[in-house]
Amino acid sequence: MLVACSGGADSMALASALAFEAPRLGIRAGGITVDHGLQYGSDDRAADVVARLAALGLDPVEAVAVRVAAASDRTAHGAPYAGGARRVGPEAAARDARYAALDEAAERLGAAAVLLGHTRDDQAETVLLGLARGSGIRSLSGMAAVSGDSGRYRRPFLQLDRQTARTACLAQSLPVWDDPHNTDPAYTRSRLRHEGLPALEKALGKGVVEALARTAQLSRDDADALDAWAAREEAAVRDETGELDCARLYALPAAVRRRILRRALVAAGAPGGSLFARHVEEVDRLITGWRGQRAINLPGKVEARRQGGRLVLRQG
Amino acid sequence: MLVACSGGADSMALASALAFEAPRLGIRAGGITVDHGLQYGSDDRAADVVARLAALGLDPVEAVAVRVAAASDRTAHGAPYAGGARRVGPEAAARDARYAALDEAAERLGAAAVLLGHTRDDQAETVLLGLARGSGIRSLSGMAAVSGDSGRYRRPFLQLDRQTARTACLAQSLPVWDDPHNTDPAYTRSRLRHEGLPALEKALGKGVVEALARTAQLSRDDADALDAWAAREEAAVRDETGELDCARLYALPAAVRRRILRRALVAAGAPGGSLFARHVEEVDRLITGWRGQRAINLPGKVEARRQGGRLVLRQG
Repeated sequence: MLVACSGGADSMALASALAFEAPRLGIRAGGITVDHGLQYGSDDRAADVVARLAALGLDPVEAVAVRVAAASDRTAHGAPYAGGARRVGPEAAARDARYAALDEAAERLGAAAVLLGHTRDDQAETVLLGLARGSGIRSLSGMAAVSGDSGRYRRPFLQLDRQTARTACLAQSLPVWDDPHNTDPAYTRSRLRHEGLPALEKALGKGVVEALARTAQLSRDDADALDAWAAREEAAVRDETGELDCARLYALPAAVRRRILRRALVAAGAPGGSLFARHVEEVDRLITGWRGQRAINLPGKVEARRQGGRLVLRQG
Repeated sequence: MLVACSGGADSMALASALAFEAPRLGIRAGGITVDHGLQYGSDDRAADVVARLAALGLDPVEAVAVRVAAASDRTAHGAPYAGGARRVGPEAAARDARYAALDEAAERLGAAAVLLGHTRDDQAETVLLGLARGSGIRSLSGMAAVSGDSGRYRRPFLQLDRQTARTACLAQSLPVWDDPHNTDPAYTRSRLRHEGLPALEKALGKGVVEALARTAQLSRDDADALDAWAAREEAAVRDETGELDCARLYALPAAVRRRILRRALVAAGAPGGSLFARHVEEVDRLITGWRGQRAINLPGKVEARRQGGRLVLRQG
């Protein structure tokens, strides 16, 4: 088992907990720190974190250097961090590079799992970031406790508040390092953490972080159930030639119909990350508000049109 | 058709739009203003609003005085304003009194519908208030465009931003009155409007209000679909004696199972407004995490226990 550690309080507390528990459970436990190379001296800091992880008794311990893609060559590819539409900003690029490095290290070292130090506060921020996308409940469902291919990534602190992790480090005199990115107002998450969320707590009361984390869990369960419903129903709304039957689609609840449409559009070649709620709604109006609309052009050169009671999706 | 008008910009713009459109559509249109009696001189102000509505050409026009229940005798009863759990604070008490008065006026005057001036900004605030409850996607679904028994209440400005309503009043030189409650930091909604939401916009960008309003619509459709699924499935998980079968419940998706449990608990006598997500989760653990737990005491003196593979709910 590996712990991914930035040297910050959350992941240092997690590294310490893993180092304490692993020998009692007969588990081999190591640590990885990722050097994003985005700040001067980041290599020295990574070496420091490696020394701290080794001092906790973790073995093996490694620093892995990554190159974060420049703005010009960033593409949205799947990362286990969060579901929904992806914006490929500097934070997403660093995240993609980090997970690729962790994947590589886990495979090379034969780790069954990689532990991540995300706390309930991180989860609350992720829900608000998803809310800002306005793309539905999947993007409100935040981070999963278990994610990635074959459930590699685990987040044991997802129900724990950040302050508890800090207190644990203090109590153990663990040196922690605060990433200046976390307080840099150029980063959305940092603005959210230091301005947005405190203002929301001031307006709505102290329970906001907990409420957001609970919303994540409830939204995730709801989104899973609706996705399963849509997957089950999809075959039933296709005719013998495989085209979507408008009358059968019309009879479904809007939430299920729109999920089927999204699945069908992605299957037809539209990239999921560029397909927004408004695209799906426009296609939905071919079903629910038919008045002879012309064909709709969608991301990935996919075209949707209604023809003879069928919804025809083609990639140009 | 009646318009409910506080004298504020949103509802004055709506009253003006109704007065303009009604004669063209051959509709009889009147206006109602509610005097909550919470501020000195509120009766004079109500008389002013009546005069303004009459000047727009609306007829009949009325001021209706209500008595807002004191904190000691407030009870949560159904109002068409928002779904989910109810907190009976001063805002909720005023709202209940207002809708009761509007219902009475609509029936007495034979109005087919009552128009309300809620804008997209009000909707965004309502979503954040729901988010703070952390009770799931129904409370994220904000206000419906059409609500109330027989769809009496209509919100034609729900997709419109508040600034457009203000601009419309300015352009028509309509005098508007700003309710001091709207800027009073003692009120949650006011704090949200003037501090919470602006800070969130600063952190996340200008599209937040629109994203929140879109989240409301998507969440509403999702919640409707899941409620329908749960209602359909409920009969199938009861045995011949009407008790809930734990094995059949276990086989359902968590989102559907918890909705069935909530419905069953309310049917057994638990008041919906006092039944929180954590209550339902505890009952759910009798199904998904059975290790011989004792009976669970729930609001409304409802008791839930597992017995011989059945979930037994009784009111004491």
